[in-house]
Amino acid sequence: VKCEVVAVGTELLLGQIVDTNSSWIGEQLAQAGIDSFFQTKVGDNFDRMKVAFGEALERSDAVIVTGGLGPTQDDITRNVIADLLGVELIRRQEIVDKIEAMFGLHGRKMPQNNLLQADVPAGAEPIPVQPGTAAGLVCPVGDGRVIYAVPGVPWEMKKMVTDFVIGDMRKRGGITSVIKSRTLRTWGSSESGLAEKLGPELERIDSAGGATIAYNASGIEGLKLRLTAKGDNEAHADEQLADGEARVRAIVGDDLIFGIDGETMEHAVLDLCRQQGLTLALAESLTGGLIGARMTAVPGSSDVFKGSIVSYASDVKSSLLGVTETLDVSEAAAVSMAGGVCAALSADCSVAVTGVAGPEPWQGVQAGTVYMTSMLDGVAKTTKVEWPFDRNRIREFTVINALNGLRLRLIARAESADTTSAAGDAP
Amino acid sequence: VKCEVVAVGTELLLGQIVDTNSSWIGEQLAQAGIDSFFQTKVGDNFDRMKVAFGEALERSDAVIVTGGLGPTQDDITRNVIADLLGVELIRRQEIVDKIEAMFGLHGRKMPQNNLLQADVPAGAEPIPVQPGTAAGLVCPVGDGRVIYAVPGVPWEMKKMVTDFVIGDMRKRGGITSVIKSRTLRTWGSSESGLAEKLGPELERIDSAGGATIAYNASGIEGLKLRLTAKGDNEAHADEQLADGEARVRAIVGDDLIFGIDGETMEHAVLDLCRQQGLTLALAESLTGGLIGARMTAVPGSSDVFKGSIVSYASDVKSSLLGVTETLDVSEAAAVSMAGGVCAALSADCSVAVTGVAGPEPWQGVQAGTVYMTSMLDGVAKTTKVEWPFDRNRIREFTVINALNGLRLRLIARAESADTTSAAGDAP
Repeated sequence: VKCEVVAVGTELLLGQIVDTNSSWIGEQLAQAGIDSFFQTKVGDNFDRMKVAFGEALERSDAVIVTGGLGPTQDDITRNVIADLLGVELIRRQEIVDKIEAMFGLHGRKMPQNNLLQADVPAGAEPIPVQPGTAAGLVCPVGDGRVIYAVPGVPWEMKKMVTDFVIGDMRKRGGITSVIKSRTLRTWGSSESGLAEKLGPELERIDSAGGATIAYNASGIEGLKLRLTAKGDNEAHADEQLADGEARVRAIVGDDLIFGIDGETMEHAVLDLCRQQGLTLALAESLTGGLIGARMTAVPGSSDVFKGSIVSYASDVKSSLLGVTETLDVSEAAAVSMAGGVCAALSADCSVAVTGVAGPEPWQGVQAGTVYMTSMLDGVAKTTKVEWPFDRNRIREFTVINALNGLRLRLIARAESADTTSAAGDAP
Repeated sequence: VKCEVVAVGTELLLGQIVDTNSSWIGEQLAQAGIDSFFQTKVGDNFDRMKVAFGEALERSDAVIVTGGLGPTQDDITRNVIADLLGVELIRRQEIVDKIEAMFGLHGRKMPQNNLLQADVPAGAEPIPVQPGTAAGLVCPVGDGRVIYAVPGVPWEMKKMVTDFVIGDMRKRGGITSVIKSRTLRTWGSSESGLAEKLGPELERIDSAGGATIAYNASGIEGLKLRLTAKGDNEAHADEQLADGEARVRAIVGDDLIFGIDGETMEHAVLDLCRQQGLTLALAESLTGGLIGARMTAVPGSSDVFKGSIVSYASDVKSSLLGVTETLDVSEAAAVSMAGGVCAALSADCSVAVTGVAGPEPWQGVQAGTVYMTSMLDGVAKTTKVEWPFDRNRIREFTVINALNGLRLRLIARAESADTTSAAGDAP
């Protein structure tokens, strides 16, 4: 099955809004085993929309149009589809009722304009999933091909595509295979380093017909390793993914992989602390609060994360963290910060970072020089790096790298506790 | 002049990368007075690229292709253009020399693959601006139409488009008018509130042929008000922008506008503090360090920003900030935090925030409830809000809203100082 995506909206062409809808739909199509070879953006203009829809339909089995289903005069996707198919628009009372009920929920009366959202081209059907006032459309073209219209509002679009469009398209196309994917998030190896490690096995995995692997360097989100498997059914695809993951883990080692799918480095550190009953504090200099902001973006982080001291000025480093070193950016300063914040916040472990984010050198230290210390069980370990990046990337890499340092120590700590307790249990 | 954009790359269709290039180019075209009616994404496939380039060329005066100029086998934009125009590729020694020199700078030898980047279709010319190893192309089609090829790497693409493509296209199209725009960043009024205030004047401004105005709600970046003016020359366009800005300021008031173009709320607060010789500290609870992260993203913030205490846990609020209130999320707690952090960090003024980011209520307080306090000259002022947003938006709106509170007080402080000193100077 080939499916094109057409995103409608003059604001997309003008760059006022980036078209993330097509990208997201493209990802869903790929995972469902549906090819998408062209994706088009077009403005809210009748003739040009008709050209775009028509061309897409000629080249493909299915077209997903996103946008132009709102209640204003600009929203003409329904009209263009009806014209393209040479049919009339028919007002559907069941959609009118649905929209009126939604307005009623908020104690408001439905404006007359919204009636337009109940118009459906003859021969088409509304998409049964309708999260907002805009009804989506399934418009069969007659020779097995089909146009889907979904709203441009991302959450409404996503719900319709996930809960209806993909399944409907697979059914029409007779696709029964299942494609699933899993992302292993890694840190601690460059993309080329990881490729080198995995290279020989990769070919074997690929040729064995199992899961395929793709890389994606994603900055503060880590280096993502995405496994994709096609199976005859759900269980078969899951089996291949599990097999692929086991092979990858055997080669790169568990330590490199900090999370699966949506799990960030922050999740990993919070989980490890939680399992070991440890509280965490931060002492941030060049990151200015970015590590804390990331930690607290995770709901429920408050049982582990106690807080952070952002010591941007030198005198704050000394007064609150007890740093006595004359050089703010040094291993000794980072160690003092890590110890100081554990004491000040009564935390069990900590991460401290100090460095020069640039663009200018500072106290004679080059931009990109960063010291990262983890403090655990009273022992400080420090890493020094010199990054050739811009201010933003230096800060982002500091966040993930510093947290990873603590993560690796927490894993080792848990393992040694296991060994100790296993040894203790031995007869 | 009509110009289409074609973004090349299979990863764009698969949604592995969002195509921000087309959006950015679309914005540049609009500002240069060039229409862009269609924008297409296509994978790294010869036949399909030829279809996409050909269709775009048929409908338009100019086509900008972005992507597919790298040194690998996948990068075939040059080949497709040559085939479409029915000409050969010619290797250009001056480009080979340029690429070799770039590798030489880093002490490396140019791989043979990079020679492909020196191939130019007969009749075409390399774009004289070449920031990386990929040479851009200007390919005249013969009847006044033209294809431009630029890299997919954003910074290389942007430099070529800004420094060459837009000007070249305007010259070929005989466009002499100048379009300029200016964004006024506002905070403190909803989009509809602002529209209501500006409504009547907007029509007058528009009908008088001056600058036009568009809104764009941009979360933590504020509500953006974009003025766009078309003039016979640079000075004429500037004049209209200045006139438009003055009219807008007269209606909405200066206080609502915190920045121009790239100036964030953080810039505004840092500048006001700097002008008045004040240092700043933060006490953050629900934002977890996000305000500090934003402040320190501004290079040179260290002369004003002293640091932050992120008091996520209750005992940190009491031990480091001297908060004695039993309720962490209350006006009294926010005021104690603001005062406590000024004392702890020896700062002249501060911003403190405490609230419930959700999704769950906390200590019986509903998610979305936030107290924001500014402390200036020993006087605390607090705002309470109850936001119906998700966790992320609650945090983002807290950042910009809390900083805006201090900003308005700093402006008033400067004005009253002016009045006082003017009165003192009077005879």
